[in-house]
Amino acid sequence: MQALYYDGDLRLRDLPLPELKSDEVLIRVLLAGVCRTDLEVIRGYRAFRGIPGHEFVGLVAGPEDSPWLGRRVVGEINIACGACDLCLRGLSRYCRGRRVPGLRDRNGTFAEYLTLPAANLHQVPDNIAAEAAVFTEPLAAALAVTDAVPHLTQSRILVVGDGVLGLLCCSVLALQGSEVHLAGHYPEHLRLAEAYGASGFLERELPGGDYDVIVEASGSPSGLTLALERVRPQGTVVLKSTYKGQVALDTAALVVPEVRLMGSRCGPFPAALRLLARGWVDPRPLIARSFPLAQGVEAIEFARQPGVLRVLLDCQ
Amino acid sequence: MQALYYDGDLRLRDLPLPELKSDEVLIRVLLAGVCRTDLEVIRGYRAFRGIPGHEFVGLVAGPEDSPWLGRRVVGEINIACGACDLCLRGLSRYCRGRRVPGLRDRNGTFAEYLTLPAANLHQVPDNIAAEAAVFTEPLAAALAVTDAVPHLTQSRILVVGDGVLGLLCCSVLALQGSEVHLAGHYPEHLRLAEAYGASGFLERELPGGDYDVIVEASGSPSGLTLALERVRPQGTVVLKSTYKGQVALDTAALVVPEVRLMGSRCGPFPAALRLLARGWVDPRPLIARSFPLAQGVEAIEFARQPGVLRVLLDCQ
Repeated sequence: MQALYYDGDLRLRDLPLPELKSDEVLIRVLLAGVCRTDLEVIRGYRAFRGIPGHEFVGLVAGPEDSPWLGRRVVGEINIACGACDLCLRGLSRYCRGRRVPGLRDRNGTFAEYLTLPAANLHQVPDNIAAEAAVFTEPLAAALAVTDAVPHLTQSRILVVGDGVLGLLCCSVLALQGSEVHLAGHYPEHLRLAEAYGASGFLERELPGGDYDVIVEASGSPSGLTLALERVRPQGTVVLKSTYKGQVALDTAALVVPEVRLMGSRCGPFPAALRLLARGWVDPRPLIARSFPLAQGVEAIEFARQPGVLRVLLDCQ
Repeated sequence: MQALYYDGDLRLRDLPLPELKSDEVLIRVLLAGVCRTDLEVIRGYRAFRGIPGHEFVGLVAGPEDSPWLGRRVVGEINIACGACDLCLRGLSRYCRGRRVPGLRDRNGTFAEYLTLPAANLHQVPDNIAAEAAVFTEPLAAALAVTDAVPHLTQSRILVVGDGVLGLLCCSVLALQGSEVHLAGHYPEHLRLAEAYGASGFLERELPGGDYDVIVEASGSPSGLTLALERVRPQGTVVLKSTYKGQVALDTAALVVPEVRLMGSRCGPFPAALRLLARGWVDPRPLIARSFPLAQGVEAIEFARQPGVLRVLLDCQ
């Protein structure tokens, strides 16, 4: 099969079909999304070697006797060992031996085929276009914010970062009836935020006053600095971004105003699929461009340009 | 009156009695406690100039017509402006124009006399010894942890730091019935933790397994590093310490395991006084040594030595 392969260098390779373990299925990838984390992986972050990519929608192609055969699916990205202390305590999302397609010890989605444990699959309702279904994973990550913080409807909320994750956070927060501001850098992204029900501002034009809840989704340490400046005392900063390396934190900015800083990563796929199926979130305006897998190296270069939203790989 | 005065240099000075504003009382200080934050202030942290100190127990000495006259009191340390947006929203603890005795724009407790707004006072029940009452402020700060985190009784808790605040945190957490470990450096402090109902460990001998809740009260950035290493996924780190300057934070250590980092500062004086009055917390074993105010400069030098718990100034 054709696949993008990263071993310090990224190139298109012809690889053997992956072998299936007993609990796994083979998935023919229809579309894969290129996320900012993938771009960091392809720069050497996390020392990953193999096929990158973790966002996808695909068709189950094997084994022949699988009840999943022929179904259109998306897949959760944490593959747990099932045996460590965290798995045994019901915390398998954080499994110590966790593998993650395209991110950690497991081949990813920038390929014609992918394997996943059947337990990770979710069927995609027929009325969700593949171009929307491929956003299930980041939409679920956005929904993790609404799960983590109470009283959002009564909160003045700021989302920092006008990339795909920030815009999806705007969308799900606005669906709750919350007042949502987005701080960004690209006027055309701010217009997308408006369409999702949030008020978009260039960072330097953000209105005054503090925020009850700030979601940092900018991927830049300056986003955390802004969040800690603008959150109210006893307020909450939800940290969706990881930064390469370490960030300098003034602990007094947390302790004196008694602010909560909450790490947040993955979210609920079923809720994301319901929102997509009902058409309450349409992520397709977030697609910057689609490339065939054969032009994957070029697609990654394109995705690296500032202000580019989601690049898709058409792997069919 | 005699007072310790810091203007880049610390010395004993003879100063005029402070003048009273209409809502204030004059307090004759009986005992003042020297906290680590005071030691940092006396090193130039926060650019404070004036009389340091914020922990005290005293007798109200004026004005003559005050209902507080003659009463033995402790005092909350945040003096709000009452007029800014945060005060008007009921968040006066975080007032933008906040003054704090000995820490921010206001003279403190290392003196014969102190002024405070009457609104900041709490009467000390007669059965609390002055040597115990002087710990009301740090005990209240410890109680802020039990207020901030739910389900503590079912949590495996680690307190990092065997100073006064860490030991008081052990005490109030153990009173809830929680399983509490303390990680420290001084065997004699660990023995105090045991008396308070916690299990004390030298940091390098801490038992395995992760913790549901970790209270960082070490005052050292390495305490935060330890906390983030040992907290379980979805667990909580309560940050009681501020560090001078900035600390390097690996955001992935928060985001991937979805950990909450909660800043925590001041707590409820009434609850602290109830615990002291009932004798359920006796902080007096935490007293390292008492000095007369006239030997205040020497007292501060003594307090700076590693492993010294609370130094008191006898200001009578």
